[in-house]
Amino acid sequence: MKKLLVFQSDFGLVDGAVAAMYGVAFEVDESLKAYNLTHDIPPYNIWEASYRLFQAMEYWPRETVFVSVVDPGVGSGRKSVVARTVKDQYVVTPDNGTLTHLKKYVGIAKVREIEESKHRRKESEHSHTFHGRDVYAYTGAKLASGIITFEEVGPELDANGIVELETGDVTISSDSITGSIDILDVRFGSLWTNISREDFLGLGFQYGDKVEVIIRNGPRTIYNNRIRFGKSFADVYISEQIIYVNSLYRMAIAINQGNFAKAYNISTDPSWTVEFRKV
Amino acid sequence: MKKLLVFQSDFGLVDGAVAAMYGVAFEVDESLKAYNLTHDIPPYNIWEASYRLFQAMEYWPRETVFVSVVDPGVGSGRKSVVARTVKDQYVVTPDNGTLTHLKKYVGIAKVREIEESKHRRKESEHSHTFHGRDVYAYTGAKLASGIITFEEVGPELDANGIVELETGDVTISSDSITGSIDILDVRFGSLWTNISREDFLGLGFQYGDKVEVIIRNGPRTIYNNRIRFGKSFADVYISEQIIYVNSLYRMAIAINQGNFAKAYNISTDPSWTVEFRKV
Amino acid sequence: MKKLLVFQSDFGLVDGAVAAMYGVAFEVDESLKAYNLTHDIPPYNIWEASYRLFQAMEYWPRETVFVSVVDPGVGSGRKSVVARTVKDQYVVTPDNGTLTHLKKYVGIAKVREIEESKHRRKESEHSHTFHGRDVYAYTGAKLASGIITFEEVGPELDANGIVELETGDVTISSDSITGSIDILDVRFGSLWTNISREDFLGLGFQYGDKVEVIIRNGPRTIYNNRIRFGKSFADVYISEQIIYVNSLYRMAIAINQGNFAKAYNISTDPSWTVEFRKV
Repeated sequence: MKKLLVFQSDFGLVDGAVAAMYGVAFEVDESLKAYNLTHDIPPYNIWEASYRLFQAMEYWPRETVFVSVVDPGVGSGRKSVVARTVKDQYVVTPDNGTLTHLKKYVGIAKVREIEESKHRRKESEHSHTFHGRDVYAYTGAKLASGIITFEEVGPELDANGIVELETGDVTISSDSITGSIDILDVRFGSLWTNISREDFLGLGFQYGDKVEVIIRNGPRTIYNNRIRFGKSFADVYISEQIIYVNSLYRMAIAINQGNFAKAYNISTDPSWTVEFRKV
Repeated sequence: MKKLLVFQSDFGLVDGAVAAMYGVAFEVDESLKAYNLTHDIPPYNIWEASYRLFQAMEYWPRETVFVSVVDPGVGSGRKSVVARTVKDQYVVTPDNGTLTHLKKYVGIAKVREIEESKHRRKESEHSHTFHGRDVYAYTGAKLASGIITFEEVGPELDANGIVELETGDVTISSDSITGSIDILDVRFGSLWTNISREDFLGLGFQYGDKVEVIIRNGPRTIYNNRIRFGKSFADVYISEQIIYVNSLYRMAIAINQGNFAKAYNISTDPSWTVEFRKV
Repeated sequence: MKKLLVFQSDFGLVDGAVAAMYGVAFEVDESLKAYNLTHDIPPYNIWEASYRLFQAMEYWPRETVFVSVVDPGVGSGRKSVVARTVKDQYVVTPDNGTLTHLKKYVGIAKVREIEESKHRRKESEHSHTFHGRDVYAYTGAKLASGIITFEEVGPELDANGIVELETGDVTISSDSITGSIDILDVRFGSLWTNISREDFLGLGFQYGDKVEVIIRNGPRTIYNNRIRFGKSFADVYISEQIIYVNSLYRMAIAINQGNFAKAYNISTDPSWTVEFRKV
């Protein structure tokens, strides 16, 4: 049976770039089923590409082939790889940190380097800026259709040697837990932290508790107030703030039907930290 | 034969939320065919969710399964339901007003409450904020694939008891008709009213007539001028205003190749009314 | 075998218009495979519609049916046509200039006018503003599914008589080449010119050379500086400017990980020219 093929990029959907990748895939095998993860990764943002794969892949069937193209180093020495996760899914991607969250939270079983001499689209020899079309979509489609096996992608690399981005720490004391803001739930402005539900509950917090929240950007305090820990948004009033367990079982902060990130001009990078402290 | 599966939400396409719903559907049945209605419903805007279903569903085949997730009350007592329209299409949705326009203009034949104990994704017991993924996509996919029948969704509810939003009135006098602005044709800034083609023509208006148009926000007049009633945009000059019958056979107002809503800062809610009056 | 069906429009994805076209296609044949090129063509921008078809179509299989709906003249005398390219792909579109780039750079083999009496959706007789749904999606789906042949679309027109937009010139002297800015690589702000790789290299430029670049808007100089000609972005520093061969084998200008168009407020229309001059 053919594998599903899922595309992600920072190309947006406003021009023909994503459609060109789809076209290449169907030239390989018209019967493939292709879908989008997202193409609105902010330009060059490898971190978000890595996070969105982690966010969405676990709900897809085994053997699904993901093609992720956020590739600021196109044309450099960065490698082109196919990774196989321990859950038996594939990711076709530049080796530039895109596999960071999958390696840390899911596990990469094997990595193979794409042998470009075999897996590059014909007549693309003068094109040096669109490997998404010329190499990744093409290789992903051949893998999804069964024209090549994972072994035929190219030589095996050490899965521990792939490029990884720095991920934030989580530090726990007797009455507080501190982590970083991994990403926003963009449309709703909620902050998604790297603090797991288990670690948070380990401090003894219960639904309904007020928790002291301190958000810092580097040394500077941006927010310091008490927020209720609720099961879902319905536990607080509209416009009230809430701490909750998000859909990836990590701690998050929101304003019910508002936008927490905009309200306090909060962004996401390792310099942004969140501390939850017992009252 | 498998039913088509169509998703709508206010999640946007910028993160992995929609892809997670697709993944859940394909975990249920990899052979399903899944499509988008739109995912750019403004956050929490149940009215628009209701209108967009009404706008698009009639063109789809019988038996198509729509999953609509605009769910500000996730985690509250609001029910999760599957509605069957009189045109034999299904909508999987929170019962929060999303079925308003379908009930008023199409007809809801039957409604069943989703029995969560049977139709909730495994290992989602600690997730209380993403029923779109954990309940609606999962149930919609099982229904579309034929794994469950409509009857197996759960107990039948009274279709007349579903939550409905207030829709605007249409009032007709001998020389004028007044209604409300249901929604915008967003990209083009056209105003789509709740006044039907039949009611408008009932006053005796003919193509080519100048019609007096009064747009009010509550008691305040925002716009008062004469506009030609045309068959299509080609009947007026570029930049000229036009009254026309829109693609849902309701009366609309536009600027040919301009943006009427932006030109006069016009918005859509029941406080906005439009009067068409004989000159 | 069924042909693939690919939609393009200026409708955006925020409302139900695109979904209505998909629905119409599946009412014709539920087994069709339908995809998007883009729906974010700027409103009424026929030039971009024409360019995006040219940008993406060559990567798709023979016999694919494209439906492109940027149709400011809906309801006017403009013809509705199906064009067959010399690469055996089809485009269903208003004859308003949308075929400009395909005719110039690919070749149109034959054009037929859509006979609306046969190929218009039933019960759409009072709808005069949405031919995308009522005529183009419907005809495209019948053609893709094999219900009608190309010959059954309607009477043949002279392919040389279709509407064409003016395209910019390229002028070459002994030490310089001048062309126009066709379009932006929107998300990355790169300028894509109409100057081909062959013509540029014909002047003797080599990778690594500094080239004098003069960008003018009409008679006014907007930019004049020297930029390195590189193979790919990796050949220059982050934030450095680069001249490169884009994925369509035309000359382009970018800032590595920046946005050239925004940096200098550069737009795209025939009044914008670029000159590359030997240092």
